[in-house]
Amino acid sequence: MSPSFYLDGTPDTVKSAKGMHLITQNTPNGQKVQIMLEELADVYGTEWTTTLINIMTNEQKKDWFLKLDPNGRIPVLVDNTQSPPFCVMETSAELLYLLKFADKDDKFGFKDELERNEALQWLFFWHGSGAPYQGQLNHFGKFAKEKIPYAIERFKNETLRVYGVLEIRLSGKYTGEPRDYLAGNGKGKYSVADIGTWPWVKGWSFSGLQEEDMKPFPHLMKWIDRIAERPAVKRGTGDKYSQ
Amino acid sequence: MSPSFYLDGTPDTVKSAKGMHLITQNTPNGQKVQIMLEELADVYGTEWTTTLINIMTNEQKKDWFLKLDPNGRIPVLVDNTQSPPFCVMETSAELLYLLKFADKDDKFGFKDELERNEALQWLFFWHGSGAPYQGQLNHFGKFAKEKIPYAIERFKNETLRVYGVLEIRLSGKYTGEPRDYLAGNGKGKYSVADIGTWPWVKGWSFSGLQEEDMKPFPHLMKWIDRIAERPAVKRGTGDKYSQ
Repeated sequence: MSPSFYLDGTPDTVKSAKGMHLITQNTPNGQKVQIMLEELADVYGTEWTTTLINIMTNEQKKDWFLKLDPNGRIPVLVDNTQSPPFCVMETSAELLYLLKFADKDDKFGFKDELERNEALQWLFFWHGSGAPYQGQLNHFGKFAKEKIPYAIERFKNETLRVYGVLEIRLSGKYTGEPRDYLAGNGKGKYSVADIGTWPWVKGWSFSGLQEEDMKPFPHLMKWIDRIAERPAVKRGTGDKYSQ
Repeated sequence: MSPSFYLDGTPDTVKSAKGMHLITQNTPNGQKVQIMLEELADVYGTEWTTTLINIMTNEQKKDWFLKLDPNGRIPVLVDNTQSPPFCVMETSAELLYLLKFADKDDKFGFKDELERNEALQWLFFWHGSGAPYQGQLNHFGKFAKEKIPYAIERFKNETLRVYGVLEIRLSGKYTGEPRDYLAGNGKGKYSVADIGTWPWVKGWSFSGLQEEDMKPFPHLMKWIDRIAERPAVKRGTGDKYSQ
């Protein structure tokens, strides 16, 4: 590992890490990759180390972090087995990196190219529609000092609309066959598509939505519960990742 | 092709299409896939047919469309060589589908797994940060009936921030080596990462940004011009796709 690869201010745990290293915080985005790593540990005994940072201090906007991820967003995956270390930004690209390099049997992906593309479609769907809308709902509904009814209403409606898209998929509205998971033939298979989506959707209540709002989505609610029961999901969202 | 695959109301051009079929409109999202198909035509003689729809009439929210893409967004790629026809939603997944099935030499992708992942990172970056922010800037700045300064300012700032991320990448700020394209070793190679990003960024003026706003991004501006010169890009954004 070149001494110049890491800039001044890089935490020692990052600088000295060997192998797979995750710089994260226990947010929905952090949890996606935390869960994937925990799932891989259960199947393959995959090992990794972690640096927890606090995004409220804007640590992720500092130079040392931007060199690893110019977008300044957690989590970042650093693979120190590559030379120089290979940095992966964007949660969904991190899931796909782990799928390629740490999941040789495609336990959380697909060998069939059409099923594989289906998983990509749902990963991009959440990455480009789900997370941005629910993220803006969190901003305008919870964090913005100015309360703007038009914006809150817009992002609430869009978040419920994307939940409705997931409900169409899981209920089998256009296929006649309900599904357990987002991608894969038949009822589907638990995959990176679910891992990339679940940590946000399970937080509907945090985002200010009420039980009444969720009534139109019975298949989605069962999917939330189904995934929540997995031991790796419990560990990947648990105390281990809290400071 | 099963007669029940397409619902009532599906346009005849969609129902009767053979081979690769694109349902699109000449928007930035439509242009991503239009450009990719035009590039493939130049290299491989790839053929496809097109149905142009008008999203202002909300055609994409009708049942026939939602069966193909439950998110109700253009473009949709339908591969009628699969049985049943295989539908791809989400522009970036469409680019990756075409890369896999129509670009056997990876002219617009990479064979090396690290470069391949790099292209995924930039595809997801634009899909999940760039397009959503610039899309909301368009909404609040141009289309919303209520003019809300806080929201316009927020999405203008975020759009300029993501342009800044692209500028960091292209200028080589942290590597010392400026790049011509977003993904790939050295100066990079024109790829799906650029094709997925360019149609939005080139529309900075449409989004209400001024030349003054763009001054901090000289490498990005040159990248816009560099890509605009490609014949396939000219065709993919041209009259052929306007109604």
